[in-house]
Parts: sequence; structure tokens; C-alpha cells
Amino acid sequence: MGRLTGRDPSLLRRINSTVVLRALRAADGAPTLSDLSQATELSRPTVEGVVEQLVTAGLVAEAAVGPGDVRRQGRPARRYRFRAEAGHLLGVEIGPHRVAAVLADLSGHRLGMLGREVSEHATADERLERVRGTVAELLRTCEVPRSTLRAVGVGSPGIVESDGTVRLCTALPGWTGLPLGERLRRSFRCPVLVENDANAAALAEHWKGVAAGSGDMVFVLAGLSPGAGSLIGGRLHRGFGGAAGEIGALHLLGREATPERLLSTTGEPLHPLDEAAVAEVFALAREGDARAQRAVERFNRRLVHDVAALVLALDPELVVVGGWATGLDDVLDPLRRELARYCLRPPRVELSLLAGEAITTGALRLALGHVEEELFTVEGTGPF
Amino acid sequence: MGRLTGRDPSLLRRINSTVVLRALRAADGAPTLSDLSQATELSRPTVEGVVEQLVTAGLVAEAAVGPGDVRRQGRPARRYRFRAEAGHLLGVEIGPHRVAAVLADLSGHRLGMLGREVSEHATADERLERVRGTVAELLRTCEVPRSTLRAVGVGSPGIVESDGTVRLCTALPGWTGLPLGERLRRSFRCPVLVENDANAAALAEHWKGVAAGSGDMVFVLAGLSPGAGSLIGGRLHRGFGGAAGEIGALHLLGREATPERLLSTTGEPLHPLDEAAVAEVFALAREGDARAQRAVERFNRRLVHDVAALVLALDPELVVVGGWATGLDDVLDPLRRELARYCLRPPRVELSLLAGEAITTGALRLALGHVEEELFTVEGTGPF
Repeated sequence: MGRLTGRDPSLLRRINSTVVLRALRAADGAPTLSDLSQATELSRPTVEGVVEQLVTAGLVAEAAVGPGDVRRQGRPARRYRFRAEAGHLLGVEIGPHRVAAVLADLSGHRLGMLGREVSEHATADERLERVRGTVAELLRTCEVPRSTLRAVGVGSPGIVESDGTVRLCTALPGWTGLPLGERLRRSFRCPVLVENDANAAALAEHWKGVAAGSGDMVFVLAGLSPGAGSLIGGRLHRGFGGAAGEIGALHLLGREATPERLLSTTGEPLHPLDEAAVAEVFALAREGDARAQRAVERFNRRLVHDVAALVLALDPELVVVGGWATGLDDVLDPLRRELARYCLRPPRVELSLLAGEAITTGALRLALGHVEEELFTVEGTGPF
Repeated sequence: MGRLTGRDPSLLRRINSTVVLRALRAADGAPTLSDLSQATELSRPTVEGVVEQLVTAGLVAEAAVGPGDVRRQGRPARRYRFRAEAGHLLGVEIGPHRVAAVLADLSGHRLGMLGREVSEHATADERLERVRGTVAELLRTCEVPRSTLRAVGVGSPGIVESDGTVRLCTALPGWTGLPLGERLRRSFRCPVLVENDANAAALAEHWKGVAAGSGDMVFVLAGLSPGAGSLIGGRLHRGFGGAAGEIGALHLLGREATPERLLSTTGEPLHPLDEAAVAEVFALAREGDARAQRAVERFNRRLVHDVAALVLALDPELVVVGGWATGLDDVLDPLRRELARYCLRPPRVELSLLAGEAITTGALRLALGHVEEELFTVEGTGPF
């Protein structure tokens, strides 16, 4: 019936604890018990009891006392702070050519980052081993014990189910059907949140990139087959089956326009198709090579069409293009021009600000979201 | 800070009043005060006070007493019911060829319906006059005084701003820039909610059609230029600027494939392009006319492409196709086949169940949603 009640004492304790933690995290500097009582509108004895519990739980510590903190009687007022170092978070990217990880504290402040190459032909086991090795090295370098990990976020290509199983992935060998979340939970012994790579990148650009402040945005991962992640009202839109934004198949309808053919300058499919090969085609085009220019034009036309489809379907405020390390500057102008011409309400179009770090950063945001929900959410209210 | 409180007495009264109204509407038959007290967990004196207020406000009435309703002492227990007849709602469709209106009570039960043709060349003033005339005739026929209208929903082509102004509409002359909500509020003297026609149809199929139970769906209005409305998690997705689903422009990218050309059997553009002309082409195709068959195939291919774009972008559970009164059966099979082939997670595809009444029904749902929010919502809980 949705009736409001605050009579459950354990719920009340949880609310008070959440309110105090929020106030601690939101405070400039380290507040005193009186500051906290004022900020939370809770009585001083209640605040004192809650803070004691949080200190015992390791989430709050007494802060160092400054010279101005002396009461009339000469006894300094105690000050408190949120212990962001009480636990750690990982953001992990698992891609076709590389795996990468970023380590952060419970406030999301970054402590270190490490990337490693991996073969596009690696089996699922080899790729997972590469992830474990990269994370182990990162933890060692940062002198962070594995036991302090509170949550791990992962960005990976493919359609990902809510339990972290990869439903379908054509980009990584052996990835379709892989219980990725479960496998990594066994290694890390903490919650593991797996998300489609373009979805993770969308979260990242909203958190720390060019989409800060734009809750209605599409991130286009302009890889071999374009994929996209979308935020609607600040929340990830995964779709009914986790397949939203998998726009790469649109061009298969009616014609067989693979990127290998689109980017070919020889009449034969471009092989291997990796960033280096693509960069070469873009460079040739800039130097005036006519075949390369036609190839880039074909490739851009496909990207414009796919992005236009996303924009017409979703009507975002902002489109962020990322994914290729190179060549994207050439795509931006035709994209803006064509969208302005054909969309009833053309969106802003920007390049990714996070570039190669978009997926790890988004994966870290997932992990941070998980602990924020654990620590700072009361039923019926969102994290702050 | 999101803290829970129930200490504000006027808020408490509002909560109690909402809880009692919900219980009254949800009850099988007419409940007694004791039934209501049990259903709401409110004390009997509180329920009695609330019911008295609601009777005074005209929203609740004593129900007729049945023969079984006799207490030991011989005095029958009073029973109560929600007065759905306390006000009325309108759902209005304003299209290129016709205007239509449906009238309902406060529970959304339909009392009457009326449709009238209008010229596709009519000016905005002429079209609005047609709407007013149609509504006046409907109210007269149903013997409902205009003063009892509590809310009016409207479905109309184009991009509609949240205040009911039409931002852009190519289908109706003089519609772009029209303050449609404001103009109709002046006529009806009650809240008027304007929505894009495909959006309204999506709401309708979810409420009373083939999408009942599917909160992640796309309604494709297969008109001259296909448009679409989408629900995500049971809520309308309008997009950042109200243009979500305006997929009709996708085919303009790179080629000039208008429906007039797609459906032509003569080499010359089909003119006038209306439902009768389209029905004729579909009928010719069914009789074996080769040019008509090629025309239908071209037309279907465009629709499949546009729907595929929507499906890849949004990943809905269900696609509902409606809009044409005829010929859609022929579209369903190729649509299912192609979506199964190219979409990573193909959705269910169904024909509209409401057909020509989808837009008025959706417009009525908008009006009903408005009064439900007014009458049955407490801050922090949704309508039931």
C-alpha cells in the first residue's frame, strides 16, 4: 500500500547510520559530533551512538585535530572522517586486444592503473588468466591487499545478462555463454558487476567525461562493428534482454557491408582489421590517396547511418563518439552535418574525453555504485 | 536528505485519504467502514472521518445495501463506493484525415466515442474547430455536461513539448509552433495533456491492447512516414527533446525513398497517398500484379529497416505494428523473419489490437493518468 512507517527499530538504525555517513562524506573537512547533529537533524546522543558503531565497523575514523579545535575548557572537540581507505574497488576492461584495470578507494579516487596486451585469438581461459595477472600486478604495485576489495566492475563486449553471463559475443573467442561474473567472483571473492563495454563507457563519460551533466546521451563505440551505450534520465538503458545499442547489425540488412570491405583500398577485404590497419587507411586518405579517401568515406557513411538510427530512436541530448584511438576527428564533421540535416532535433556531437580509459573508468563507476548502494542507500531513496 | 517523516498533519490526512480511495477502488463490491479499516490498517474512527470528507468532496457515495447486509441488531452496515461518475475524461485524436474523441468516467470506463473526417488541407483553426464540434456532439449524445470534464488527453502527429506546444509537425498544415495544449485548455477549461500520436498508441496497447504486461515495447505507427512510440520499464520514453521514435527520416540518409515512390506502380509518384491508395496497391499485389508486388516489397523493406533500427537501438520485448487500416498482415511475416535474422535478441512482433482506436485510447489513458495522480498518489509512491 506504500504507507510510510518509521517504527521498525533496525530500519531506523539503518536510516540514521546512512544519514550520518552521507553527512560525513558531504562535509567540507572533518565535522564534529555537533556539526553532524546539526547537519542530520538527529540528536547528539543518537549521532554519538551511530558514529561509535561506524568506527567499530571501520568506516569512520577520528580525524587529526587542528590548532583551532580547542574548547573553552581546553579539551579539543573530536572530529571524524569517512575512511575511504577502508576498502578498494577495481574497474576492469576485457577487450579483444588488451585487458586493463584501474584501482580506487571507496570514494572512487584512483590509486593506480595497468594495461596489458592480449592476443585476439586467446581462449576465454587465457584471457581470464591475463585479467587475473594484470590485477595481481596492479594490487602488488599499489601495495593493496586483495582482501580489501569490496567490488569489481567489468566492461566487456557482447550482450551481458544481469547475473554477469555473456549471452552473445562475436568479438572474443569462447566468450558466448561464459559465466564471466561467476568466474571472476571466484577469483576476487567480492561482488563482480559485468556490463557491456559501450554501456560502461557511457557511464564513464557521464561520470568524468564530456557527458558530465547530460543524463540523456548515447556513447558510440566506433569499433569494427559499432556498438552503443545509452543513458536515459541518468540511468543506463540496457534494453529488455541487455542488447540495446547493438546497432552494428543494421547494415547487414539488405547488403553485406562489413568494415573489412568498407575500409578496403585494394578490392580485397582489409585483413587483419585492427587499429593499426585502420589508422593507416585514415593516414593514406589524409595524404590524398583516392582509394583510401573513398574507403574512409564509405566507412563514415556507415557510421553516420548507424548513429542516425540511434539518434532517431532515442532522441538523446548528446552523442559521444569514442573507441578508435585514431581517425575519429575525420568522422565528427560529417556526423554533425548529416545529423543536423536529417534529425528533427539534432543532438550535440562530441568526441570522447576519456578515450582509451572510458571502459575501465565506467567499470570502476559500476563498482563504486555498488558500494554506494550498500553503504549510503535507504530503501526508497537514491544514493546521493 | 531523504529522511522519512509522517509528522506533518496535512500530509498525514492526504496519505489516509489516498489509502482509503485506493482501497475503495480496489475492493470487490462496496466495502463497509470495517472492511476499509481492515484493508487500510487505519483505525475505524480515522476511516470514518476520511470517508466523510470524501463524501463531502463528491468522490465517494453510500452504496445501495444488499439483503445480506443486516447486523444482529437489525441495522444494516453502510457500504461505500468510489463515485467514478463524479467527473469525466476525454481522449482525443487529431490526425491528417480525421479527428475522434472518446468519453469516459473517472475509472476510465468508456461512455461513448465519435469520429469525424477532416480535410488533410484544413488549416489549424479549421482542424481545431472540427475537434471542438466533435467533442460537443459527443458530450451532447452522452448527456454529459462540459463542466464535469476533469482532464483531456490528446494524440497528434509531430514533436510535442511538455507544455503541449507542437515543436515540429510536417503532417498537418499550420501545426508547427501551434500552442495546441493552451488552445484546447481555453476550450475545455480543464487540464489538457498533448502527446505524440505514436506515443499515445504505445500507452494504449500497454493499457488495453496486445502489449498488456509488456512494459518494454515499441509501437510502430506504419503511416506515410513511419513513427514510433516506446515504453521503457512501463514508462513512455519521449527523448530529450520529445523526438524519440521519429524514425521516418532514416531512409532519407543517402537516398530519396519516399513512400510515394516506394509504393508507385507506374514509375510516377503515387498521388494522393492515402489509405485507399495504399490499400489498392496491396490488393493488386495480392491478385498477382508484378509491379504492385515489387512496390509492396520495396515498402516492406523500408519498414523492416526502420523497425530494425528501433529494435537494435532499444532492445524491446515486443514490437506492435499499427497505423494502416489495411495491408499490415503482409508486413508481419517479412518483419519477423528479418528481425530474427539480424537482431541479436529478436523481439516478439504483433499487430495492434486496438487498430483505429489506439490513439484515442492512449489519449484517454493520459487523461486518466492525470486524475489518478491527482487523486491517488502520495509523494514517494506511484499510482496503483
